[in-house]
Amino acid sequence: MQTLNIFTNKTDSLPKGKADFLLGASITRTCEIEGITQAGIPGKIPLTPTLDAEFIINEKVFSMPDLAETPTGVPTPALITRAVHNLVPFSNIEILNLGLDAIPQNTPILNFGISPSESITTGAKIDAKEMFKKGMIAGKNYELRGNYLILGESTPSGTTTAATTALALGYGLRDDFSSSFLNVPDDIKNQTINKAMALLNDEMNNFEKLSLVSDNMLIFCAGFIIEASRRFHIVLAGGTQMAACLLVADRLKEDTFIRVKSENITLATTAWVVDDKNSDIKKILSQLSYTPHAVYTSFSFEQTEIPILKKYDEGEAKEGVGAGASLGYAKANNITNEQLLEAIELLIYGM
Amino acid sequence: MQTLNIFTNKTDSLPKGKADFLLGASITRTCEIEGITQAGIPGKIPLTPTLDAEFIINEKVFSMPDLAETPTGVPTPALITRAVHNLVPFSNIEILNLGLDAIPQNTPILNFGISPSESITTGAKIDAKEMFKKGMIAGKNYELRGNYLILGESTPSGTTTAATTALALGYGLRDDFSSSFLNVPDDIKNQTINKAMALLNDEMNNFEKLSLVSDNMLIFCAGFIIEASRRFHIVLAGGTQMAACLLVADRLKEDTFIRVKSENITLATTAWVVDDKNSDIKKILSQLSYTPHAVYTSFSFEQTEIPILKKYDEGEAKEGVGAGASLGYAKANNITNEQLLEAIELLIYGM
Repeated sequence: MQTLNIFTNKTDSLPKGKADFLLGASITRTCEIEGITQAGIPGKIPLTPTLDAEFIINEKVFSMPDLAETPTGVPTPALITRAVHNLVPFSNIEILNLGLDAIPQNTPILNFGISPSESITTGAKIDAKEMFKKGMIAGKNYELRGNYLILGESTPSGTTTAATTALALGYGLRDDFSSSFLNVPDDIKNQTINKAMALLNDEMNNFEKLSLVSDNMLIFCAGFIIEASRRFHIVLAGGTQMAACLLVADRLKEDTFIRVKSENITLATTAWVVDDKNSDIKKILSQLSYTPHAVYTSFSFEQTEIPILKKYDEGEAKEGVGAGASLGYAKANNITNEQLLEAIELLIYGM
Repeated sequence: MQTLNIFTNKTDSLPKGKADFLLGASITRTCEIEGITQAGIPGKIPLTPTLDAEFIINEKVFSMPDLAETPTGVPTPALITRAVHNLVPFSNIEILNLGLDAIPQNTPILNFGISPSESITTGAKIDAKEMFKKGMIAGKNYELRGNYLILGESTPSGTTTAATTALALGYGLRDDFSSSFLNVPDDIKNQTINKAMALLNDEMNNFEKLSLVSDNMLIFCAGFIIEASRRFHIVLAGGTQMAACLLVADRLKEDTFIRVKSENITLATTAWVVDDKNSDIKKILSQLSYTPHAVYTSFSFEQTEIPILKKYDEGEAKEGVGAGASLGYAKANNITNEQLLEAIELLIYGM
């Protein structure tokens, strides 16, 4: 595990001991724009978070015969997270239903009365203030079992809504967000962002803007970490989306006068995100009013015999479902890359 | 804690160590028959399991300003279960959604695609075979965290559906089931049972009968314990309803050729149920093909200053939401009756 090298004065690991794992699973109808994401089965993208949730909990899925994979055959990063859970079980593992189409079966879910949000091209129709408040309540109530919390996400097309969210809040970060693609479909993504941004005007406050062009996961998790970080350490498990979540929480302190306790926040991601030429997570994080603790884990599929896994090293998928933080959690618990690879391959063979 | 005195050769306590707690929360529309139950707020009975679920997890409710209480003011036994969780935290606590009207908020739920069942007076419209199978799958998949599992229920009017279930399966136990009332509304209950029984005929197999006159909780939990009892010890937390669950599992072995591993089953209830003059849990349990381990816990509200709690000692409410097993769990973890009383009173003062 390494500290992102733009940041100094950081410890180079996650907190010690066992972690709880929460997955913020959410649908924005933005994901139904043709070609915008490859996080899932074409035509069935809105099932992806449901399948991810079922898989990390059960090591199998109930809502669909096959696990979500990209059109080029790259399986969901949920595989990595589940493999880690097999090696060093999380002290608790639950799903946050932040607006799902299909309820995951046989899977512990926390509900907050949240429906999928609309496409940002026509306005997401989120009550952002209410969503933020729901996150705060959940962050206040969550009973930690282990030593700290890993908070991951599964939100197809979430990098597009994250980029738009950052732009809407005044951050000049249009081209710095990652994608599940190796070759990013810039036209589709840009058109989507442009349509969404056209819905905004300068009279709007931050909550009004978020209501139109953000997603439930970002707003809810921003509220969640503000409250929860007062009580325990949180590892935001993800790449540029989770970085955007920090941006949202940071910006909203202008409106709410409350802020995250930043010493209780770590962002943890994969080397695939940090090394990505098409995005710049370091630049995103550098916009925060504080210098966050941020780490990534060196792990690759170089040694695997399974060709579809090698696609991760080529830049497909990259991150999601808490994969990066899970790898870090495994390392912090003395699991070797060899053991990790073996556990992931075992899951692929079992599919 | 004492062993029900009809049973010999039993240890007099629950398994050692920490327990997971699962609450089977279910609605049968039977509960909407006027006057059939006092487990909840009149007119809002179908909210009771939702509020019970929210309360045991959060120590507060979200779906209604007040916690469910009977018309005579007796608060739900969820208070007892939550007080125990405050004294000796369960190693895991989750809700099984076995058909709810309102989804509990901020509360970990396991979903199985189950809707509320219809009133048994017109046919419950359950696919009993499918429900039983869902229970088996869940019992096979559940990841135990602690040393054993406590399985409780919140099913308003569940004693009526339990009595009908037992009759339908050929057990002559009409008058042996408990009630949340001190003075049981025999006419309403009997009329309901008679209407339901009139739907049955001798050509029907057990699953067909259960589909018409049982409830989701009984059938699901019967399937659940059959699978789960192969892997770990289960404490069925409840009175006559949970005894009926054992009857269902026992009878269905004729159809399915699988049975519970009875040495891994304990039934745990309250002294209020065991001492109840209007029901006979010992007689119900004596119908099983094996002699189950069954315990109850001596605890009373004699010393309380809070009048509404004394109603339990008078025979109101009696059991539910895993209260009896929770009391046993507390005792097994060296909690005194004084500590229990104090913790319960603290919750009442906080309401």
